[in-house]
Amino acid sequence: MRKQGPAAVVPPPADDVVRIIPLGGVEEIGRNMTAIEIGNDIFILDCGFAFSEDDTPGIDYILPNTGYLEERRDKIRGLLISHGHLDHIGGIPYILDRIGNPPIYTRKLTGMMIKKRQEEFALTAPAMIREVEADEVLKLGAATVRFFGVTHTVPDSMGIIIETAWGDVVFTGDIKLNHEGGEPSDEEKREFGIFKNRKVLALLMDSTNVWQPGFSIPESNVYRTLEALIKETTGRLIIAMFASHLERLIRVVHFAESYGKKIVIDGRSMRTNIEIAREIGLIKYKDDTVVAVENMNQYPPERLIILATGAQGDEFASLARIGNKTHKHIRLTPEDTIILSSSVIPGNERAVQKLKDNLSRQGAHIITYHASDVHASGHGNREEAVWIHKQIKPKFFVPVHGYHYMLRIHGDLAVEMGVEKGNVVIPDNSSIIDIKAGEKIVKQSFKAPSETRVVEGQTVSELSDVLMRDRKALGQEGFCVVVATVDRRTGKLHKSPDIISRGFVYLRDNKDLMDQTRLIIRKSVEDSMHNPRGADLDIARDDLAEAVARFLLQRTQKRPIVIPVIVSI
Amino acid sequence: MRKQGPAAVVPPPADDVVRIIPLGGVEEIGRNMTAIEIGNDIFILDCGFAFSEDDTPGIDYILPNTGYLEERRDKIRGLLISHGHLDHIGGIPYILDRIGNPPIYTRKLTGMMIKKRQEEFALTAPAMIREVEADEVLKLGAATVRFFGVTHTVPDSMGIIIETAWGDVVFTGDIKLNHEGGEPSDEEKREFGIFKNRKVLALLMDSTNVWQPGFSIPESNVYRTLEALIKETTGRLIIAMFASHLERLIRVVHFAESYGKKIVIDGRSMRTNIEIAREIGLIKYKDDTVVAVENMNQYPPERLIILATGAQGDEFASLARIGNKTHKHIRLTPEDTIILSSSVIPGNERAVQKLKDNLSRQGAHIITYHASDVHASGHGNREEAVWIHKQIKPKFFVPVHGYHYMLRIHGDLAVEMGVEKGNVVIPDNSSIIDIKAGEKIVKQSFKAPSETRVVEGQTVSELSDVLMRDRKALGQEGFCVVVATVDRRTGKLHKSPDIISRGFVYLRDNKDLMDQTRLIIRKSVEDSMHNPRGADLDIARDDLAEAVARFLLQRTQKRPIVIPVIVSI
Repeated sequence: MRKQGPAAVVPPPADDVVRIIPLGGVEEIGRNMTAIEIGNDIFILDCGFAFSEDDTPGIDYILPNTGYLEERRDKIRGLLISHGHLDHIGGIPYILDRIGNPPIYTRKLTGMMIKKRQEEFALTAPAMIREVEADEVLKLGAATVRFFGVTHTVPDSMGIIIETAWGDVVFTGDIKLNHEGGEPSDEEKREFGIFKNRKVLALLMDSTNVWQPGFSIPESNVYRTLEALIKETTGRLIIAMFASHLERLIRVVHFAESYGKKIVIDGRSMRTNIEIAREIGLIKYKDDTVVAVENMNQYPPERLIILATGAQGDEFASLARIGNKTHKHIRLTPEDTIILSSSVIPGNERAVQKLKDNLSRQGAHIITYHASDVHASGHGNREEAVWIHKQIKPKFFVPVHGYHYMLRIHGDLAVEMGVEKGNVVIPDNSSIIDIKAGEKIVKQSFKAPSETRVVEGQTVSELSDVLMRDRKALGQEGFCVVVATVDRRTGKLHKSPDIISRGFVYLRDNKDLMDQTRLIIRKSVEDSMHNPRGADLDIARDDLAEAVARFLLQRTQKRPIVIPVIVSI
Repeated sequence: MRKQGPAAVVPPPADDVVRIIPLGGVEEIGRNMTAIEIGNDIFILDCGFAFSEDDTPGIDYILPNTGYLEERRDKIRGLLISHGHLDHIGGIPYILDRIGNPPIYTRKLTGMMIKKRQEEFALTAPAMIREVEADEVLKLGAATVRFFGVTHTVPDSMGIIIETAWGDVVFTGDIKLNHEGGEPSDEEKREFGIFKNRKVLALLMDSTNVWQPGFSIPESNVYRTLEALIKETTGRLIIAMFASHLERLIRVVHFAESYGKKIVIDGRSMRTNIEIAREIGLIKYKDDTVVAVENMNQYPPERLIILATGAQGDEFASLARIGNKTHKHIRLTPEDTIILSSSVIPGNERAVQKLKDNLSRQGAHIITYHASDVHASGHGNREEAVWIHKQIKPKFFVPVHGYHYMLRIHGDLAVEMGVEKGNVVIPDNSSIIDIKAGEKIVKQSFKAPSETRVVEGQTVSELSDVLMRDRKALGQEGFCVVVATVDRRTGKLHKSPDIISRGFVYLRDNKDLMDQTRLIIRKSVEDSMHNPRGADLDIARDDLAEAVARFLLQRTQKRPIVIPVIVSI
């Protein structure tokens, strides 16, 4: 939300420069997007959005600022997408056209997910999606681009390698290890084996959980726990999780079939994702394994598994409706078991608490990740990062994906792992980082355009600080419109002034305050108008607003926004 | 926020009944208050408030509803306060007078904390505070009241015992164990020893962390970690914590003196608490151990410990100002170490993240409870609850202090510990729970008054759902005032309508939308006025608001509150 002056012209990189511009995702979790510029080519890594939070009320999504790319759209050789989560693909429908609709290179599932999303928007041109394999080698512009498979929570996640004359630029995307007691899987060892004989110039790596000590819980533990619960639970089982945790969803469907249970999918995003996975062969199940929610009661409870959305407490999701008894088909009984197979996203604690209260009021047994391994993060902890650094051994290091504090911890880790201190750069959004002749890294004093861009309704615009400030004030203090009709000739009020307020306290209930406010209005306007011919209505309005605001503050300790309306007749 | 009809008259308890009414703190964390009514006597346990959260925008504090007590103020024998935290004493200045200013019984430190707070309010009558000792026995009304010392994070915390003809009603207050590897301290064993020969009718116990498995980190671990850090840190040390964690504050001052360091106290609440503790002899230190922040630079950094408020990211606290470089006296250097000796209260994650980002941008080393035992909760985990239940062995159990989900887990625990299933009642706020003849517990179908009461500015009132809804809408969508001056005779607009908006998007920037909205206004008003003599201004206003709202929604996907002003001249 920092402002800068009229966009300084950023000089193009010299011929021997590899330029790295993180456009989003390095001062927050979300809106991941990074541009790599080499000579006459620009490669874009991911194109996510972030969900709006407390400090941007009324905003739907926050986008990376792509001004730099828009001015250089002819140089863009492609959008390379690591995986199909919204913080990596969510920006595409809003941004693709602005940057000249470049081809999108990604793996099959991710491509399907992008395509499905594009269908929800009324867009002029279709996205050009070019499906790649993990072991494919592409020629884009003057560069060679390679990929490698990584472990995350959605299939087809991959890292990206851009070969340059000075070595590889490597981007991990979101990453964790599927380790067993700290030992990575054979598949991971194989995938990372490609780095044995490569010279890595620079590493850009996910920093989300590197501040957490040790290893993360491997997803395989979660599968074991879920399998045991599916096998052993005697009543009906409700499993709530993110639709984006597609690997886990696939496993649950598989376990259900193994133990002769039926699946009810209650949530649109979940159904869509499972259908995509089935369509491209990532999962196979019999048609009758999935049962419509309205036919659920044809089966005994112990044969039913309900997959539900809403583990974050989202007000209108399946689980919330089950909790507050407004679900059309599902009513809880004390024999039901509910698994919240997710962590709580910061900011959602209260909503999740309310959800758990509602569910437990109906006697259902609730299992959370606190008591049992029913959830694991998709981002590796410190020791996983250590292993990955050891495989890739970069000369320069730029941590991405995380708040500044997380990036700094990751930067310190890289130094411990052998990167020279001067070869680590902690970026800000829109930092321009140039690696010169493969020898020297510089965070330039100039930046790419960095004003925050937001989506509100169907409009993309720059975030307005004034608008945000007004909304925050209105949300706490409300407003008050005062209407005075004044006789132009006499300077006297025509009738008693009107007061209309919303979100502000006590006015309607408090006749005294109302009457006294009317007196304040009358006095202010008539004072302003005492020389009616010379009276300036704008000044009169300002004075009126100030007088009323001051009086209300003194009497109520509240600061409603006061809108003065003076009609002179 | 549920409403009930005009307060049903709650019948008084029969002579053989012990009545328990949790008035707050059993559907939330905070505003703890419970009434015990026996025959002609009412005893009140604690009187806290809760801080407002997202669902009550613009509200300062949330109070227990004390309507039941206000109608029975003559029966109130005393307010018994377990300890000096705001969720146990915060309601006193707002409530004491309403319930007839009963005497307050509590230990020395808590009494001082209550007194200090009362001084900040312009109150008519002084609080009557009667200091008690932990081993004191009081006669109040027809009952005998005893106390026992408990471990929490503030000195002088105590549990309360009310003797009845059928056994004791025991209230723990906030509680954890100062255990060593699961073994409670000798002092705790001694304090709980009193229950060896007592018959406990009912237990009311803190449930905050009982859902967490195992034992909590004992505070003694935190002391050891802090002592080591104070001893070994070579640069300046900044320790941020809650001022309410007074035990820990006292230890830090003590360690500082032991290792020849100076203390800078930067935060009013912290200074007040340390001064109170010193005044009553809970802590002793030399006058020159504490250094004023403006004289700090007379000492080398390695001899300085700054105690700071603001570990929760509070915008105006000491640590936030250090972070954003607006602190008058303190600038960070990369040689500084900052200890965040606190957890993050749900809802504050983003603010704390921003704080850590700001601090780490200046290169300071940050130590959090994730990496090191620099914080422990004041509430015991499950295994501590197990030990406490074993000592007290109640016949009836009513879990308090927590969300419904937490209480239910605690209720299940009590059953596992031997309480009969039918002898556990999970209360709601204002539930009336009667224990008849020491034999049977009933949660009555009627309730004490339960409308949510809130503090806003200086006013205590019932929470208005409409007000909250308006504030939430305004905070997301803003509002729009449209002013039309219409000629009474012709039914035509006198001039172009005015549009004033705040918190709503695009209007000022979007001349088209503005012009089209003016057309909509003109059309709506002139249609309404086409028969000027018969026109009803109220209907015209409603139609105008609806027409404008519909148009703006369609064009912007936003729903600003539309205020129609029609002046007929």
